[in-house]
Amino acid sequence: MNPTITAFERSPDRGNGLARDMRVRWALEEVGQPYEVRLLSFKAMKEPAHRTLHPFGQIPTYEEGDLALFESGAIVFHIAERHAGLLPGDAHARARAITWMFAALNTVEPPIFERSLAMILERDEPWYEQRLGALEDSIRKRLGDLSRHLDDGDWLDGAFSAGDLLMVTVLRRLNGSGMLEEHPNLAAYVARGEARPAYKRAFEAQRAVFTAASS
Amino acid sequence: MNPTITAFERSPDRGNGLARDMRVRWALEEVGQPYEVRLLSFKAMKEPAHRTLHPFGQIPTYEEGDLALFESGAIVFHIAERHAGLLPGDAHARARAITWMFAALNTVEPPIFERSLAMILERDEPWYEQRLGALEDSIRKRLGDLSRHLDDGDWLDGAFSAGDLLMVTVLRRLNGSGMLEEHPNLAAYVARGEARPAYKRAFEAQRAVFTAASS
Repeated sequence: MNPTITAFERSPDRGNGLARDMRVRWALEEVGQPYEVRLLSFKAMKEPAHRTLHPFGQIPTYEEGDLALFESGAIVFHIAERHAGLLPGDAHARARAITWMFAALNTVEPPIFERSLAMILERDEPWYEQRLGALEDSIRKRLGDLSRHLDDGDWLDGAFSAGDLLMVTVLRRLNGSGMLEEHPNLAAYVARGEARPAYKRAFEAQRAVFTAASS
Repeated sequence: MNPTITAFERSPDRGNGLARDMRVRWALEEVGQPYEVRLLSFKAMKEPAHRTLHPFGQIPTYEEGDLALFESGAIVFHIAERHAGLLPGDAHARARAITWMFAALNTVEPPIFERSLAMILERDEPWYEQRLGALEDSIRKRLGDLSRHLDDGDWLDGAFSAGDLLMVTVLRRLNGSGMLEEHPNLAAYVARGEARPAYKRAFEAQRAVFTAASS
């Protein structure tokens, strides 16, 4: 039986692969695990039926038999633990790949996500320009550190891992900002992730949902 | 050989256990693993020697033989995987506990941490009250969801786990805000965490560093 994930019926990013189901789809494609998708309206996400699966009323969730999970990072980790291809076999390399998963979500994503939110919610506030500048300063600090670490490597620590998968999805949210391009190695890193066949299949699958909803 | 972690030589929270080494200390105490601590000045944290351990120039790090990790969530997970006591043995319960680790760090912590930052960096801005109000609205949404999920349970999913350990450290950052007390079950949950003998040992150990630095 294939696992079932949830996704937006109509993603606010217009099918650009920024919603967090993209990470889970990509991980499932990397390991060759077929999956089902249940689409949810914004209203349905906040209803009790979905809240029993996701206490914070968000997407994605993951159901597999009587196991139900939420949080994209945890779902990607669950997939990575059960299939080859997303975590190295060597114990030390595996621990470092997991470190990058947490670094992507807890150190790099927060200011990047905050910037996206501020651009939607605070655009008309008196503090907007100054706040955006402060957020971009924090982001640039993280990007500088990350670029220095990546150096001329293809991936963050040896072979492609779930840590790269999460980091690429986090960095993609800067598309159009010009900030990634200040570090050519980071722009190339994101492009390297997007060029993976599994990424492309996942991207097309989530885009098809948006296209269908809009037609 | 005991693992070595890094911590602030002089923690900006004045020994209140909010720095992220507290999570790692608590996890090590829960599993009964002795550890060494290397203290770092703010200057030393940004120097190349430390950056080879932590690309973002922060604390804590974790060194054990030739393994070097960073990110408190990843270090807690590493400890939890290698010792009994922080993750359930049952595969489904284990996956759910890991879900709560990610939920603590990626869903609940960001607005709480933003609030702390704003209270330091934006206090004198003309928009401070309005911005603080917006952040507290986001935090209250998360707390309401979390309180509803916790209900009358002792912990987030059955027995105490690494998910609770991280969530308690995240929620403690609201001490003094009055927001936790709006949900008596959450205030009791945090108190339950703080009452654990391992928590108390970890707290005293990090406080002793600040006390020594200030005397």
